Amino acid sequence: MTSATATTNVMTAETLLNNWQGHRRVTRKTIEAFPEDKLFAFSVGGMRPFAELAMEFIRMAVPIVDGVSTGKWVDYKGPKPTTKSELLQLWDAQTEELNAKFPNIPPHRFCEVDKAFGRWEGPGLATIQYAIDNEIHHRGQGYVYLRALGIEPPPFWIRD
Amino acid sequence: MTSATATTNVMTAETLLNNWQGHRRVTRKTIEAFPEDKLFAFSVGGMRPFAELAMEFIRMAVPIVDGVSTGKWVDYKGPKPTTKSELLQLWDAQTEELNAKFPNIPPHRFCEVDKAFGRWEGPGLATIQYAIDNEIHHRGQGYVYLRALGIEPPPFWIRD
Repeated sequence: MTSATATTNVMTAETLLNNWQGHRRVTRKTIEAFPEDKLFAFSVGGMRPFAELAMEFIRMAVPIVDGVSTGKWVDYKGPKPTTKSELLQLWDAQTEELNAKFPNIPPHRFCEVDKAFGRWEGPGLATIQYAIDNEIHHRGQGYVYLRALGIEPPPFWIRD
Repeated sequence: MTSATATTNVMTAETLLNNWQGHRRVTRKTIEAFPEDKLFAFSVGGMRPFAELAMEFIRMAVPIVDGVSTGKWVDYKGPKPTTKSELLQLWDAQTEELNAKFPNIPPHRFCEVDKAFGRWEGPGLATIQYAIDNEIHHRGQGYVYLRALGIEPPPFWIRD
C-alpha cells in the first residue's frame, strides 16, 4: 500500500449518509413487496422472516448514529411493529431521525474507536459501515424469499 | 445537511480497499462452503447458482479498478472456471491484482464521473462502492442457498 492511498480521501460524511439512505429506500421497497402474512412468517432454510431482519436494521441504525455521535451506546427501546404498515411507519420515522442526527456526528468521532454496545470494537466509521453492509446482506436474503414466493424484488441498482 | 457534513472526510482509499478485501475474504469462504456440484447447479427460486454470482463479482472487480484508474472501460476477458478449485484460483489471482492496482488509482479519479462500461454513469467511488455492495447483496443470497442445503455459512462479521 502506498502512502498516497492512506491519505487519499474518497468519501465525505454526506456521501456516506446518502449511500445509506439510498440503500434504506431499496429496503423499504423490499418490505413493501412482501404480502403481509409472508413478511412476518415466511423464510427459506430455517432463517428469520424478513420483518425480523428489518427490525434488526432498525435496532442498529439510529442507536449506532447516537452511539457514534455521543459515545453512549444504548440499546433500541422503540416500538415493535406487528403489521406491515406499522413497520413502514417506523422505517419512515427512522429515515427522518437519521437525516436529523447524522449531520451532528462530530467529525473526529468517525475515526475514534469505541466498543459499540459494549461488544463491537472499532472506529465510528466501521460501525456505521457495518450497519449498512449488514442491511445489504440480509436484504439480499429477502430477495431470495421474494423469488421463492414468485415475487419480483425491487431493482437493486435503483436507489431513489 | 450541514456544510460540515459535506466536507468531513470519513474514508481513505486504503480503508475502502481494506473493506473490500475483507468482504472478498468472506466471499471466498462462502465459495469454499459449497459442495462442488451445488456451487455450479443449486439455487433457490430460479435464481443463479453461486458460481455464477461469484463470476459476476470477478467480471466487475478488476475491470472496474482498471476503468476508474485509466478511464478505459474494458469487459472481462479472463478464464471461465468450471471447477471450484479453478474458481478459487482465479479469486486469489484477483485478490493480488486488486492489491497491486488499487493503490495506483489517481486520487482525482475517485470523484471524476465516467460512464462505466458505457452504461453506468457515476463518480469512480460510486462505481467501486457498487461493486462491493453488489457482492454483499448476492453473497447474502448464497447464504440462503447454503442454509437451504443445511450448511452453516461463514460468520458475516469475521473479515480476516
